[in-house]
Amino acid sequence: MRLVVVPVVRDEPGRVLLCRMSSDRGVFPGQWGLPGGGVEPGETLDQALRRETLEELGVELEDARPLLFRDATLDKLLPNGSHQRLYMVFLLYECRLRPGAFALNAELSATAWARLDELAGFDLNPLTRETFRLLGWHS
Amino acid sequence: MRLVVVPVVRDEPGRVLLCRMSSDRGVFPGQWGLPGGGVEPGETLDQALRRETLEELGVELEDARPLLFRDATLDKLLPNGSHQRLYMVFLLYECRLRPGAFALNAELSATAWARLDELAGFDLNPLTRETFRLLGWHS
Repeated sequence: MRLVVVPVVRDEPGRVLLCRMSSDRGVFPGQWGLPGGGVEPGETLDQALRRETLEELGVELEDARPLLFRDATLDKLLPNGSHQRLYMVFLLYECRLRPGAFALNAELSATAWARLDELAGFDLNPLTRETFRLLGWHS
Repeated sequence: MRLVVVPVVRDEPGRVLLCRMSSDRGVFPGQWGLPGGGVEPGETLDQALRRETLEELGVELEDARPLLFRDATLDKLLPNGSHQRLYMVFLLYECRLRPGAFALNAELSATAWARLDELAGFDLNPLTRETFRLLGWHS
């Protein structure tokens, strides 16, 4: 099992931060979704969330509150081209970021701030689409 | 880190199932709270939730949906009288049970169905009290 923390970042006007995953790795290569990553041994959830946000987006977390959790068994594409089947537990936090310019790591290829009525226009991965449905943000 | 699944069991009239922990073990010995236990290696969350419900209450789960998650660092009293400090991640599910009589295991000493306006009358452990506050069930 892989325990994964996921920042659901909102800005002041209520837009949500979407990330396009790199095409050569991850569970949904090339699609739009949410950032996040695995909790490492010895970390608290809060530490993992702050580390992942800084590593992936290059920006610090301002605050975070638990939002929802879910699980799924997914195929992960590794950078060497092989696949790994993983049972993942996702812990989602509603977050705000400190001001700063994004500096994406190799896992992400783009970011976008989307209003809730714009979510349908993105090629969202199925798990993110379902998450937004659970939150009532997407039909 | 210990990953713990917690069934928040409701009945048809909306009462919540409280359990009194045994006085000789656990993180809140002798107090009222919620059942649940640790996810074992190789289990899914759903498997762990069904196993723990059956082990602790002797009754099968009918259905369950993710409710909320939280974490805490707590002291656990072991049956041999020693203490263990644990970082725990709690995954709470709103559940219904199949009909049947309770058969409690050694971790629990009593159960009670409580209406939400009766929760204040129980000696709830602080984590359960805070959880009910988060849910808006307890002031």
